Parts: sequence; structure tokens; C-alpha cells
Amino acid sequence: MAKVQVAPHRPVHPTPAALITSMDEEGNANIITLGEAFNVSIEDPVILGIAIHNSDRRDSHAVISRTGEFVVNLPTAASLDKVRYCGRVHGNDVDKFQESGLTRLPAAVVKPPLIAECPINIECKLLSVQSVGDHDLFLGQAVAQHVNQEVLDENGEIIVDKLDGFANVLGQFRAYGPKVT
Amino acid sequence: MAKVQVAPHRPVHPTPAALITSMDEEGNANIITLGEAFNVSIEDPVILGIAIHNSDRRDSHAVISRTGEFVVNLPTAASLDKVRYCGRVHGNDVDKFQESGLTRLPAAVVKPPLIAECPINIECKLLSVQSVGDHDLFLGQAVAQHVNQEVLDENGEIIVDKLDGFANVLGQFRAYGPKVT
Repeated sequence: MAKVQVAPHRPVHPTPAALITSMDEEGNANIITLGEAFNVSIEDPVILGIAIHNSDRRDSHAVISRTGEFVVNLPTAASLDKVRYCGRVHGNDVDKFQESGLTRLPAAVVKPPLIAECPINIECKLLSVQSVGDHDLFLGQAVAQHVNQEVLDENGEIIVDKLDGFANVLGQFRAYGPKVT
Repeated sequence: MAKVQVAPHRPVHPTPAALITSMDEEGNANIITLGEAFNVSIEDPVILGIAIHNSDRRDSHAVISRTGEFVVNLPTAASLDKVRYCGRVHGNDVDKFQESGLTRLPAAVVKPPLIAECPINIECKLLSVQSVGDHDLFLGQAVAQHVNQEVLDENGEIIVDKLDGFANVLGQFRAYGPKVT
């Protein structure tokens, strides 16, 4: 098992892809695609982190900082073209819901909308923003979660194979394979 | 696409599994298994986060806080029994390298060892520790990375299918399936 030393670059994997929704004071909703969203506090309270590049302090970054609210939406493999679109286009230029064809649904607690096509939606209240290297780290408390009914079994548990989820591994998007034990 | 509201609990997925190595002042190495490791700053500098439950402030938590060094080792599916073992047993009771059969290799910059059986090893210098809900968030700068030679192609790029990696999805460990496009 010989080791080779390489320069680190986004070295931890797999990571999720997440569509983050926000809403400005005039009611304009925006969507940003992030490759870095993660659980920090697991249970009591539930706190998530998202990291936004510090060169991109307009749009979603500015709106979430001001309004203190965002929703983390976990996408399906079937919507990967829309995931890529929302990562490529700036929200101050276009209405990303209209242009992408994604569907808005009202959240329960916060103002930013849920994305209907994402089977998991986590409503968050912003706790803090801190500069960490080339990204700004947003920590938010999960105040509500929504799941698409069709991915739940009769006990209300999520069926992983119905999520149509995927993992981001070194820039490749990989479907979930078989269980390893 | 009817939505059902559920109580959030570790809601973001997939996440990686990571084996974190540390070394105390007497040269005793320890290993802890974490389900929460993530990239925060991507390129300049490269900064990772790991979250350790705040009920577990002995062992790895205390040693990393004092020594300011840790290594993030990304395991293979083939070593999942060892991953589980290192998540179940406390390092102040046993020598986890000896008991698990995992192999120590010297790091380049920091004192904690690399795990030979993990194809990716990221050496980190601790930047900060902060309390975030029920976990403590450790941010560390990646100062070196090692990759097993057999997972690299002739251009030095990592071949994802040779990693034998897996994703943690709602408590299930899933191999990487086909690319989604």
C-alpha cells in the first residue's frame, strides 16, 4: 500500500448536492446549488452547515445573511440538469424557478419556498456566518423538515432506493449502489 | 408530490465515513469513526470540518484539542468492520490499531499516523474548536494529502471505482453505483 503525496483539493468525499432556496424582502425567491452541505449538530438541536464561496457574496449569500432564513433541498438524479443550471446562472439575472421549471411550495415556518421536485426539504433559521478560508460558513438550525410522501414506507421511514439520490465523488455524480455490510 | 412533515434528525445525506487519527503527548495513537466530515474551504487554503459529539470530550476530542493535529482517513467498504469497531470502542481502553489490525504509517507533517488501509489520508492542523448544539465543530487546515498508489491512473488522477468507497445514507452504507448524467 504505497502512498503518493498529492496537493489537497476538496479532499473529503462523498458529499451531497443541495439546492438552497432563499427569499428577499420583496418576495423574490432564489436557488443556489452547493456541493457542501452537512450535519453538524445531530439531534438537539439539529444544526446544518452550508459553505458559500466568498467571491459570491451577492444573491443568495446576501439575502440569507439579511433575512436569516434558508431551505436545504436535496435533489434527485432525475433533476441533475436543473441542479447544474442553478449552479451556473446568477439569480439576480433571472427567476430560477421559472427558468428551471422547478416548482415552488410554501414552507411551514420560514419564507423561502420548498422545491417540490426535491424529496427532502429542510427549513433553517440562520444562527451564524463566519469566514473560513475561501468560503463563508453558514450555520442554521433546522426548524422543520418535509419529505415527499412517495418515498415513505407505511411506518413513515424513508426508503433510500426511492430517493433517486446520488453522491458527489471527486466531481462525478454517482447513484447509490448496493448496501455494503 | 405531496409533502409530509417529519422531525429532522441528521437530515443531510449522503455523508462520508471518516476515521480520524490523533496522537497524545506520550505517542499513543487513537482512532475515532465519524459520520460527519466535510469540506469548508476548497482551495486556498483547504479547510475541513469534523464534528464530535460533546458528550465525548475525552479521548480523541481532548487529544486533538491539546495537540492541534489530526488526520482524516477515508475508509474502504472492505474495511467496514474496522470502521464500525473504531466507532464502538473507546481509545482509552485499548490500542485501536493493534485491536483492529489497521496499519500505521508515518505522516509527512503532523504526528498522528496515517491508516495504510484507507486510500485517502488528509493531514490537518487544528484552527478552531467551537460548540455547535450537541457537537463540537473542529476546523482544520489540510497541510498534506496522501493517496494509495493503486487508485491513481497514469496521470495521477484518482480512479473513483478503485477507491472501494461508500456513502452513508440514512444509516445505510451504499457502494458507489453508476454515473448519473
